[in-house]
Amino acid sequence: MHIGLIGLGKMGFNMRERLRNGGVEVTGYDRNPDVTDAASIDELLAAVPTPRLIWVMVPAGDITDAVIKELGEKLDEGDLVIDGGNSRFTEDQKHGELLAAKGIHFADCGVSGGVWGLQNGYGLMAGGDAADIERALPVFDALRPEGDRADSFVHVGGIGAGHYAKMVHNGIEYGLMQAYAEGYQLLASKDIISDLPGTFRAWQKGTVVRSWLLDLLVKALDEDPGLQNIDDYVEDSGEGRWTVEEAIANAIPAPAITAALFARFESREDSSPAMKMVSALRHQFGGHATRPAK
Amino acid sequence: MHIGLIGLGKMGFNMRERLRNGGVEVTGYDRNPDVTDAASIDELLAAVPTPRLIWVMVPAGDITDAVIKELGEKLDEGDLVIDGGNSRFTEDQKHGELLAAKGIHFADCGVSGGVWGLQNGYGLMAGGDAADIERALPVFDALRPEGDRADSFVHVGGIGAGHYAKMVHNGIEYGLMQAYAEGYQLLASKDIISDLPGTFRAWQKGTVVRSWLLDLLVKALDEDPGLQNIDDYVEDSGEGRWTVEEAIANAIPAPAITAALFARFESREDSSPAMKMVSALRHQFGGHATRPAK
Amino acid sequence: MHIGLIGLGKMGFNMRERLRNGGVEVTGYDRNPDVTDAASIDELLAAVPTPRLIWVMVPAGDITDAVIKELGEKLDEGDLVIDGGNSRFTEDQKHGELLAAKGIHFADCGVSGGVWGLQNGYGLMAGGDAADIERALPVFDALRPEGDRADSFVHVGGIGAGHYAKMVHNGIEYGLMQAYAEGYQLLASKDIISDLPGTFRAWQKGTVVRSWLLDLLVKALDEDPGLQNIDDYVEDSGEGRWTVEEAIANAIPAPAITAALFARFESREDSSPAMKMVSALRHQFGGHATRPAK
Amino acid sequence: MHIGLIGLGKMGFNMRERLRNGGVEVTGYDRNPDVTDAASIDELLAAVPTPRLIWVMVPAGDITDAVIKELGEKLDEGDLVIDGGNSRFTEDQKHGELLAAKGIHFADCGVSGGVWGLQNGYGLMAGGDAADIERALPVFDALRPEGDRADSFVHVGGIGAGHYAKMVHNGIEYGLMQAYAEGYQLLASKDIISDLPGTFRAWQKGTVVRSWLLDLLVKALDEDPGLQNIDDYVEDSGEGRWTVEEAIANAIPAPAITAALFARFESREDSSPAMKMVSALRHQFGGHATRPAK
Repeated sequence: MHIGLIGLGKMGFNMRERLRNGGVEVTGYDRNPDVTDAASIDELLAAVPTPRLIWVMVPAGDITDAVIKELGEKLDEGDLVIDGGNSRFTEDQKHGELLAAKGIHFADCGVSGGVWGLQNGYGLMAGGDAADIERALPVFDALRPEGDRADSFVHVGGIGAGHYAKMVHNGIEYGLMQAYAEGYQLLASKDIISDLPGTFRAWQKGTVVRSWLLDLLVKALDEDPGLQNIDDYVEDSGEGRWTVEEAIANAIPAPAITAALFARFESREDSSPAMKMVSALRHQFGGHATRPAK
Repeated sequence: MHIGLIGLGKMGFNMRERLRNGGVEVTGYDRNPDVTDAASIDELLAAVPTPRLIWVMVPAGDITDAVIKELGEKLDEGDLVIDGGNSRFTEDQKHGELLAAKGIHFADCGVSGGVWGLQNGYGLMAGGDAADIERALPVFDALRPEGDRADSFVHVGGIGAGHYAKMVHNGIEYGLMQAYAEGYQLLASKDIISDLPGTFRAWQKGTVVRSWLLDLLVKALDEDPGLQNIDDYVEDSGEGRWTVEEAIANAIPAPAITAALFARFESREDSSPAMKMVSALRHQFGGHATRPAK
Repeated sequence: MHIGLIGLGKMGFNMRERLRNGGVEVTGYDRNPDVTDAASIDELLAAVPTPRLIWVMVPAGDITDAVIKELGEKLDEGDLVIDGGNSRFTEDQKHGELLAAKGIHFADCGVSGGVWGLQNGYGLMAGGDAADIERALPVFDALRPEGDRADSFVHVGGIGAGHYAKMVHNGIEYGLMQAYAEGYQLLASKDIISDLPGTFRAWQKGTVVRSWLLDLLVKALDEDPGLQNIDDYVEDSGEGRWTVEEAIANAIPAPAITAALFARFESREDSSPAMKMVSALRHQFGGHATRPAK
Repeated sequence: MHIGLIGLGKMGFNMRERLRNGGVEVTGYDRNPDVTDAASIDELLAAVPTPRLIWVMVPAGDITDAVIKELGEKLDEGDLVIDGGNSRFTEDQKHGELLAAKGIHFADCGVSGGVWGLQNGYGLMAGGDAADIERALPVFDALRPEGDRADSFVHVGGIGAGHYAKMVHNGIEYGLMQAYAEGYQLLASKDIISDLPGTFRAWQKGTVVRSWLLDLLVKALDEDPGLQNIDDYVEDSGEGRWTVEEAIANAIPAPAITAALFARFESREDSSPAMKMVSALRHQFGGHATRPAK
């Protein structure tokens, strides 16, 4: 099998290597000349045998949109595009229709595993028609960990379902990280805990909270036991927001995931206008002193 | 009527004045010689006719506890002590028993109104035996606003009930302030809002959200339209914590009040250990850059 | 002044009456023949002198959209449309452009006050061009409570700003109601509180939490002291969701308002799939018994 | 090594078996004659060689307290008591002092692993003096999984530290379960997800959210794919409450763990007094219909 892979960033670069290790021939394209195989998308399309399978692995939003529109103009009937990035599931349905109008097939695939995927394999959630998913199975099999396919790959449903599942996966991930992080702060603030990194380490086998994220937490404390070198500013990349928006759209309470999202927002504020107002109100009714702004 | 008032701080000082304006004779005691009427508690007790009514208005916790123990040793059978401070309701039951053992009566009274109480009158929530509450009615009537007694005074229940009601009142207050504060930040962050103080001002009459706290919010923005001079660090004085602890003890969900409490805790953190950990985890699995600690 | 008013439902019907009481001539149109003045929108437009001022007071979303499109086809250059319903602010910008293309002016106005507005007057937040707002001042003045205009009316900013402010107003309203409601449950669950309605009544004057919503809460307990006849199912009408979505879009933490929204979602669930899963997990790891589904 | 084990319930029974499999001689006592080895605590104490090591594995609270007091009266100087139950850490300090006054040693040990511990081994967090912990190492080694001791056992700190760590562990567990459960509801509510159990199954290898709890979630869906037979009523056993209380006591925000706790409280309410009040308020100001109570 020989596929095209557009996007060789942090994720795509590693995926190309894992695919090749797994026996899939890959022609990759990236704007970065140091990593690209093809000089242009046109050159990539010329290199890949038809009917083509083109895996798109570029940043969600405008860039994915532009790449898929370009492919819509350049691909042939019967080709298959798989968006493996973190697109919002609502985008998939638009992209599927756009390509279908030209006889081009489309599927979406949520990919989890981060920088460890090269070594461990990626967890994959695919959305699309059964025949398209079937056709891409050799690619999925090369990307995922060894062992039972069902433990690391799922055909979730129609177009968009893979990214929906990945969005929820990331929402859960926010909640899990927040839970560990709150526990970390509780332990780190208590004098009677004299072996903080050792406590987390001892949770790795046997306890109910053992997980891969816990293993990474232990690794992080190995590298920097008091997290001295890390600021508390935390970015988000969209999926957490979308998860809460979906919760709202479907009238589903999601308080823990939302708490995790808001904690990130708070982490980025130098000063909270809301809490200035609470301070101002306490001063107004109770004569409580306010602190002068820094 | 002639009562003793122990504690002439921010609240007690104003209450003495309002009581005197309302025709109640007051002998006040405070450690601060500039404001005290009596040189000592003993002198105060000598000045007040028996059976005495002694209103205690000192900081909750150890100081209230010490004053009530001292009164337990010095008062006579039939005297009545009213704790008007912000004691936890569980303290009242202990104090009531301590004094009852000596034939001294005890009641508790939650007092709301802040620095405006002198002018507006105070909202009062009393706990204790009906006869004791009856006996203190002239004091309550002088402290509360004019008009129907039921609009500003309530005999909530037995000993501790007044402070329980005041605790919940303050828990609600946390939630109300947080709601206004979140709305303030949403408006303050939006470019299309060109008259931010005017928006709050226009809510004062007619809207569903009109309230006394809103009036104070308008006043705060009058004094400092962008809250430029106020830091976002917000203290808490205990009642919010107790409210959430009571929610937990009674298995009652209280998410909005708890959100308000946690927002204050967050406001005091220079750096959040929890969010450092979230940042560290994102780096571990996703290779996302962390910011170096400031 | 003589205006057209489209929509004579719970809000519009009362507003027509208040406008007429305030000296504004109103021709109203509603699909309900029992309340309408004009037999059709065409008839209404014929009755109102040009340049016309047409106030739209119909349900937000598709119905508002359809009415404004119809007005776009039927109005003349120089006419002014004011959308006084609960439209999302993003709709206003579309409607403004649609009408502007035909020389028709557009403004939006958030209206608060509920069923009490007829009697008390409405709080008003307007968005649009200064000249358009100026032109409609007699209408605003008739609708709002007597007294200083600035206490009940504000020109918030450009088109959409009025509805943005109203959206945030309603988000705050969610938070305020939730705070009182949590406090109510805490008091209602405590045996030592022997006068629950009296406690809220006594908060009406003097306390920090006094507000119009508190007055309504007292009224509700007057009518049904234990809320025996009311189910705990709570609807939402959109503005709370939009407020949280705006918070997310602007990376602003809004935990109390969001808690209020989620509490409503929870109130509507007969059974929570999420909590079934928590129960299932506890059973899996701890052998804790699950309850059989009802 | 030969120890005494008091309490042979769901946890203690399995632990006795694992200890014996690991070469530790155990005399167990339980009030249940079907499982006990000794007819009484006295008989157990007679059977265990001095200086004795007695492991207490009974329900936290009054029962643990009573057992430790009884041991305080019956044990000899130099004996060592380890409380392996889920006691609150503040209890440990009392118990340690009580026993120390008689020359009896005390340590606490948080034990995680649930019903799977017999097979997998238990995660262990111990608090106490180094010499006491050292002395009990053969017991810890038999209970924990094979492999590096540091991956499943930690000497956290002084007396109480083990239970503090276990309390936080359980608080994290609440948050993790809630995050998965919210994600489950989001997926279960979405029509485009056509293979819900398969989605979770596919997360087990490769994804960021893989964990032991996820494996159990997959097992739960294997047994009952729609959780049809499980009610959404979820108990709590105290550690989650204590975790939030510790967060409050230390002014640490813990929004995700608290959300998980409150979700359990909500799951137990047939009808929410708070939400009845919100419904009543909406009716009062907006004329919104309330639903009649069921």
